[in-house]
Amino acid sequence: MKKVCPSADEILSRFIVSKDDVETAFHRLSTQQPKCGFGLQGVCCRLCSNGPCRVTPKSPRGVCGADADTMVARNFLRAVAAGAACYLHVVENAAGSLQAAAASGKEIQGAAVLAELAGALDLPGSDARERAGHLAGQVMDDLYRPRQKQMALTEKLAYAPRLARWRELGIIPGGAKSEVFDALVKTSTNQSSDPVDMMLHALRLGIATGIYGLELTNLLNDVLLGEPKIAAGPVGFSVVDPDYINIMVTGHQHALIGPVQEGLAAPRAIDLARQAGARGFKIIGCTCVGQDLQSRGDQNGVFAGHAGNNFTSEALLATGGVDLVLSEFNCTLPGIEEVCRQYMVAQICLDDVAKKQNAGYLPFDPGAGEETARRVVEAAVESYRQRRGRIGINVPEHGYENSLAGLSERNLRAFLGGNYKPLIELIASGRVKGLAAIVGCSNLTAGGHDVFTAGLTRELIARDILVLSAGCTSGGLENLGFMSPEAAGWAGEKLRQVCRELNIPPVLNFGPCLGIGRLEMVAAGIAAALQVDLPQLPLVLSAPQWLEEQALADGAFGLALGLPLHLALPPFITGSKLVTRVLTEDMEKLTGGRVIVEGEIVPAAEQLEAVIMQRRAALGI
Amino acid sequence: MKKVCPSADEILSRFIVSKDDVETAFHRLSTQQPKCGFGLQGVCCRLCSNGPCRVTPKSPRGVCGADADTMVARNFLRAVAAGAACYLHVVENAAGSLQAAAASGKEIQGAAVLAELAGALDLPGSDARERAGHLAGQVMDDLYRPRQKQMALTEKLAYAPRLARWRELGIIPGGAKSEVFDALVKTSTNQSSDPVDMMLHALRLGIATGIYGLELTNLLNDVLLGEPKIAAGPVGFSVVDPDYINIMVTGHQHALIGPVQEGLAAPRAIDLARQAGARGFKIIGCTCVGQDLQSRGDQNGVFAGHAGNNFTSEALLATGGVDLVLSEFNCTLPGIEEVCRQYMVAQICLDDVAKKQNAGYLPFDPGAGEETARRVVEAAVESYRQRRGRIGINVPEHGYENSLAGLSERNLRAFLGGNYKPLIELIASGRVKGLAAIVGCSNLTAGGHDVFTAGLTRELIARDILVLSAGCTSGGLENLGFMSPEAAGWAGEKLRQVCRELNIPPVLNFGPCLGIGRLEMVAAGIAAALQVDLPQLPLVLSAPQWLEEQALADGAFGLALGLPLHLALPPFITGSKLVTRVLTEDMEKLTGGRVIVEGEIVPAAEQLEAVIMQRRAALGI
Repeated sequence: MKKVCPSADEILSRFIVSKDDVETAFHRLSTQQPKCGFGLQGVCCRLCSNGPCRVTPKSPRGVCGADADTMVARNFLRAVAAGAACYLHVVENAAGSLQAAAASGKEIQGAAVLAELAGALDLPGSDARERAGHLAGQVMDDLYRPRQKQMALTEKLAYAPRLARWRELGIIPGGAKSEVFDALVKTSTNQSSDPVDMMLHALRLGIATGIYGLELTNLLNDVLLGEPKIAAGPVGFSVVDPDYINIMVTGHQHALIGPVQEGLAAPRAIDLARQAGARGFKIIGCTCVGQDLQSRGDQNGVFAGHAGNNFTSEALLATGGVDLVLSEFNCTLPGIEEVCRQYMVAQICLDDVAKKQNAGYLPFDPGAGEETARRVVEAAVESYRQRRGRIGINVPEHGYENSLAGLSERNLRAFLGGNYKPLIELIASGRVKGLAAIVGCSNLTAGGHDVFTAGLTRELIARDILVLSAGCTSGGLENLGFMSPEAAGWAGEKLRQVCRELNIPPVLNFGPCLGIGRLEMVAAGIAAALQVDLPQLPLVLSAPQWLEEQALADGAFGLALGLPLHLALPPFITGSKLVTRVLTEDMEKLTGGRVIVEGEIVPAAEQLEAVIMQRRAALGI
Repeated sequence: MKKVCPSADEILSRFIVSKDDVETAFHRLSTQQPKCGFGLQGVCCRLCSNGPCRVTPKSPRGVCGADADTMVARNFLRAVAAGAACYLHVVENAAGSLQAAAASGKEIQGAAVLAELAGALDLPGSDARERAGHLAGQVMDDLYRPRQKQMALTEKLAYAPRLARWRELGIIPGGAKSEVFDALVKTSTNQSSDPVDMMLHALRLGIATGIYGLELTNLLNDVLLGEPKIAAGPVGFSVVDPDYINIMVTGHQHALIGPVQEGLAAPRAIDLARQAGARGFKIIGCTCVGQDLQSRGDQNGVFAGHAGNNFTSEALLATGGVDLVLSEFNCTLPGIEEVCRQYMVAQICLDDVAKKQNAGYLPFDPGAGEETARRVVEAAVESYRQRRGRIGINVPEHGYENSLAGLSERNLRAFLGGNYKPLIELIASGRVKGLAAIVGCSNLTAGGHDVFTAGLTRELIARDILVLSAGCTSGGLENLGFMSPEAAGWAGEKLRQVCRELNIPPVLNFGPCLGIGRLEMVAAGIAAALQVDLPQLPLVLSAPQWLEEQALADGAFGLALGLPLHLALPPFITGSKLVTRVLTEDMEKLTGGRVIVEGEIVPAAEQLEAVIMQRRAALGI
């Protein structure tokens, strides 16, 4: 029998094992062993034709003279820059979509959030559309500033005590795209060899990622598409109903999927589906964009629910129930290409940065959403006609019916009665010991798919620590029931009571990894109510199963915010004592944050709990 | 005895061997053996925490499913993007400097080139300063456009038949910085898996690099600092005169060095030098920025001459004659840090992208050149006082007294009598068989430092092929005498006669690697006179000893131009049959260009000669 990587999700595991004609990442993991030690430690460099060079005790420097510190810092900064670039690409497209919508006279869905922003940012404009256009324009202006010019919205959106600290450290970012650009220059052949400067650059990129790529992407999308709604709904593979033409979405850009989501409910589209023998169209959420759709609710009967996170995508295709993959960003695994071929699943990409080799490509044009939707409808119908009857469908019973999702910084505050005081009181009284944001990706290397994430979450809620989640962590945790009512029973006694009183699960779902930006806004809201800075809060951050370069950019934001950031696996930095020390120790003196690497679940939970207890003690609660 | 990498430059080799207390790249090369085969072939991926992954026959895909083609294409595109970013950073700083100069009312040094550009680009403005400001502004506008908007100057500057081909291929670049940015996104974790799309993106980056990073950088600098002048002067380590306070410059940005070059000749500066016991200041050229200073001539008695290319820098410091390193970009080897420490040489960086770990940093501010110069003067005097008497000085007899430099697209044309006809006639008559542009870096892996470059040049001129050089190739070739009058004797009989009649060496020095942009303008000028497209010319391109990511961006420009591009070592692509085939074969159908990898000198010369002979035959000459 083939060796298959374990998952915390046993039904998923059994399903993958049952599909022995399908190769997934779960199978490939064992073929990629052992790992290269140089790569793992970040001490391999291939920036020039004298290389690749590798640091060993006998060869402590590359041919050019770069030592381990320089190599590791360059590799790390370049990865953070790439991750930041990904999120900034997303906010640019969101801003472009909002600009186009505002210009076209389309109705603004998120009038309330726009009104709040208009106040905070002093947006000009005589109506919502004008103000939305200005908001998007200001984001664009900031993204395109040169590096010497600081971005204007950073000042307006950042939590004031943080802004002051960043100013002292000289890490307020200039134009975000130029910051990324210069990081790429800095890490090129024979450019920077100053590891500390590169670490500070990573913090600037973290701030740009956080405020623009995360927070503003959410806010722009909320204005464009409507705000998240706290609601329970189905999750897991069972959301796939073979009676429909099923379109699986992957990526991170709800703004790009939005027009298609609208178009699939149009009478003409439904007619076409019916003529082909289906009851209509359904969007099957997969990866973060599915979480984003889930958070805003099924607005028009098209969204079936969120099926799973990044590493479920290949298995989801192997159910046979998906007729078309509509992708617009990562985390769209290259591995899906072969599964799509086997299962005759058509593929369309809406953004060339995430173009799949055997996929069609419809260039994103924020003014041409209807045409895009029309072409997706046609391709999906055609694929349905071609493959149904020829491909077996086998959807396992999997998931939960009433998983709570859709939390945001605004609706959590509203749920609490208009301010964070009730939550603060719960924390002060000890009924909630503290908050843990468990965010980011899933990977296959920290114990297996979602294994560390689920284990750590279970440990933390058992310690009465309320968990907030955003990213593939949410996609994993909801498929394991953590956002369902019964999960209250897995919490410690005090937290369990709180959950039952408030009718919430012990893990709150803030949606896609973009939702990390919402968590920051929640944290800033609580800190402001307490009149303290973020590093004083009984709040810890963990990206236990970080996978992507984007996660490193998120992490850099977390460090800039001054939060303790737990990772189950270190990034590729351990070959440099200097970089490791900066990230795990010195950073605390700079921003208040630090990286905690702990690869065992219970010790990780203990360390995070200890941080919370220290913070409680310092606050005198 | 320590193992030392060979150099074509025997005096340099002996000098390095004699300095057995100094570690240089020549020593470190042997410690970095053997090379990693995965890295060399480009089939190693470390984009996520499931990795690093490596392609082998037993593991043909990474955990995510990426195959060798995807991995190689991603690694290659990211390297090209980084190289493009480096050149685009340079043109941005040049444009910023010209904007500041125009705004400050500073005299425009290159009125003639500005006048020619004003005509070609239809620049508004009532005087030179205004027109210069508009020129710089238009460059800035193009750099900062979004990716969906094509750059305006591309249309105006590109050779028309090329532009038409690029339009057919859809590779006219959008905003240059956004093209780089999106390439970084595209090559991030689980984004693009389409190798062909990524290769086309590399071509777009090549065009942006060529027209902006190369051509426009030269043109802007010519306007700001004055045009190159064809002149003979000294080269090699002997330019170091211990009676002066010697400032070694490394990098690529003459615009940043310019104000310091001015300031070092100011009476106050010379007074300070004299008070310290020196006769004044000298700038010692090293790496490309030295070539750039050389090309514009010694305007004020400060520039001593060009000492050598990238890999001479450590040895040059070991002469003891250098008091301060002023760096502003690559190729500033990290290895100089330790040599500077040993020889008590102060270091100042003018651009944080190339910050050295133990260097001072003076942020570049195009409006504050005088202040920068003042601080460099002070640091250099202080270093001189500290180190002289304590550090032995040992400058070998090295180099040539009358090396010809300073060619440009405009002064070559003027030298020929105002148009390219005389050169075309020489080619048509067969007295010059063809042209070979030998450009780019030096590395230590293609036979040793400058070994392949010198060998190939010798073979080509012996075949009556006129060699044009730009980059560290020039820095190497001039130190070997190829640009000195006696080199005529090394050419074939016909070319030798031509050289003696025209009083030129058989290798023409177009200065720094930025000069590759000048070579393109020369080629376009010749093609226009012949009314043919570039791929029809008896012109070949070789970057025999490419080193850096920048060289790959240059190479992508060469391919977009439709030129045969020889490399002695392949880039890290050989693990992908698809990418290798696209670059070495399919590209010819797309642009007319292709990569020729040939690691032996004589066969390389034969292949390049054969291309020239085919082109001659096709032109009927």
